[in-house]
Amino acid sequence: MINQTLLPVRLEYLETDDISQIWNAIKSLQVRGAPAIGIAAAMGVAAAVQHVETDNTSVLLAKVDQACAYLSSSRPTAVNLFWALDRMKKTALKHANLDPTSLKQCLALEAMAIRNEDADMCRKIGIHGAMILKDGDTVLTHCNAGSLATAEYGSALAPVYTATKQGKKISVFANETRPLLQGARLTAWELQKAGINVTLICDNTAGQVMKEGKISCVMVGADRIAANGDVANKIGTYSVAVLAHKHKIPFYVLAPSSTIDFKCRKGLQIPIEERDPSEVTCGFGRRTAPEGINVYSPAFDVTPARLITAVITENGSSQPVSTRTLKRINGVQT
Amino acid sequence: MINQTLLPVRLEYLETDDISQIWNAIKSLQVRGAPAIGIAAAMGVAAAVQHVETDNTSVLLAKVDQACAYLSSSRPTAVNLFWALDRMKKTALKHANLDPTSLKQCLALEAMAIRNEDADMCRKIGIHGAMILKDGDTVLTHCNAGSLATAEYGSALAPVYTATKQGKKISVFANETRPLLQGARLTAWELQKAGINVTLICDNTAGQVMKEGKISCVMVGADRIAANGDVANKIGTYSVAVLAHKHKIPFYVLAPSSTIDFKCRKGLQIPIEERDPSEVTCGFGRRTAPEGINVYSPAFDVTPARLITAVITENGSSQPVSTRTLKRINGVQT
Repeated sequence: MINQTLLPVRLEYLETDDISQIWNAIKSLQVRGAPAIGIAAAMGVAAAVQHVETDNTSVLLAKVDQACAYLSSSRPTAVNLFWALDRMKKTALKHANLDPTSLKQCLALEAMAIRNEDADMCRKIGIHGAMILKDGDTVLTHCNAGSLATAEYGSALAPVYTATKQGKKISVFANETRPLLQGARLTAWELQKAGINVTLICDNTAGQVMKEGKISCVMVGADRIAANGDVANKIGTYSVAVLAHKHKIPFYVLAPSSTIDFKCRKGLQIPIEERDPSEVTCGFGRRTAPEGINVYSPAFDVTPARLITAVITENGSSQPVSTRTLKRINGVQT
Repeated sequence: MINQTLLPVRLEYLETDDISQIWNAIKSLQVRGAPAIGIAAAMGVAAAVQHVETDNTSVLLAKVDQACAYLSSSRPTAVNLFWALDRMKKTALKHANLDPTSLKQCLALEAMAIRNEDADMCRKIGIHGAMILKDGDTVLTHCNAGSLATAEYGSALAPVYTATKQGKKISVFANETRPLLQGARLTAWELQKAGINVTLICDNTAGQVMKEGKISCVMVGADRIAANGDVANKIGTYSVAVLAHKHKIPFYVLAPSSTIDFKCRKGLQIPIEERDPSEVTCGFGRRTAPEGINVYSPAFDVTPARLITAVITENGSSQPVSTRTLKRINGVQT
């Protein structure tokens, strides 16, 4: 995996089958993005059992449990982490009757399957999203929901990669995304590396580029989508949605269907986590605000469904955004 | 004067009557804000002539010309700088018949007058603006149009200081204002120092705090106001205006009447200067975006008059904002 904390200054890969190194990589945000965390954790479990020399399958099963418990302590809030670990545990139980070597193989295959399914899902989001993009279009995006957050194309950036492969010329404006600058550090980096024309702007410049007619549409990811289509995503997404609406620019949310939480009726029910003030006051090696200053730094905001043109998952596009269309497109019984 | 480049980490005063130190202070942004630059330059001219030992007034007049030419080369775009230097030159010519000692006194008094008029103007803006603020109100501001930019109360922050002195409890949310973080470095600092309850937010959080019902009104300064009321101000102001409009929050522009350019018919005619990309890509003392990345970093944007509730100058409030009300309030013949 890429050590994302060193980007954009250094591209360094971490190649390891040591579970404590994987735990540390998740904990310290060397790997970030919910799908990427899930994949790293699954790989960690698969790697951990490979090292166990035993003739007894139950020793391996115990090792799986231990590895899952250990990795689940790395980042307690990332949902995909628990989902992926749970899947590894179920795989182990399902194949508890196999000999140790075969079980090891099954666990390795399951981790690969999680990775491949994620890549496949990204590609499908890319295909659905690319249909919206015309040759010459310019996409505004916020934060990083690109290849660094997932196994492959990402969610919000998947249509950009797919449309580019289809031969369309697509440009991107990337909001730098304060406080942690995922747009500047990650989105700008991965698009530049992919040869896509990307321009970095400060978050407060989004309104201006829209006013200047530079933006064809907005594409962002999602942290959680409520049943009614309200979307929790990185702080600043809501402001971009209001600005897009004012300038009559389509605003698309792209995410795997697993991001839709049908048990959560509307956005108001999503709790808003606050970040550490130091990310705002001295985030980049230098103090830029007075000591002891009050800071309000919510990690994300909620964009109401009525500001969203469509929610696009691997299953297709829900437009207009509503519980009904989200359920119908994503095959959920009503 | 305060060396603003060291804020908020260090409060250091520069006390000097050396013109080259003053030139350097303006050039290197130790003193910034159009009114403050004008005052510093006028003081620089007054100081320069004090050092000339002569019985011949024409030697002093030549020194004034030389000092003005020198200081005007410090920052070629700040309008107040030229206005203040011009005023010093006119004062010298008007009193060319006086003896050297008296002329020196007249120039010192003129520089003090420029300072005092600015302070007076800020106080008047404060009085007009404070009438809008009720006890318990919370003001959102962008960039720094406070005491650091002027002789005293500032423009956008003047109503906050005045209302506070009147015994009203006023709180402020300060946008950090990327790329140069004047909100974090200067506004947060001066309000904290004045004992006013201030909360720092990232620019992309303005929409969220409005949505949460935290903001009573927006108060910002202006770099230039067109005759129709369109306002050029620090980049991000336009986005804040759109967000305020969407949330039905009043949006006030506060500036000295000299900021209104009646020769400029509308905002479209105001050229938009671009800033150096390095302010965005490595502004925090560390590179935060990939090498060679495209950056779009306009220094300011234009907010159309229809998004502005009122333009408040030392002469009063123009509401609704139009050429007619701006001229009537500010005593310009139509």
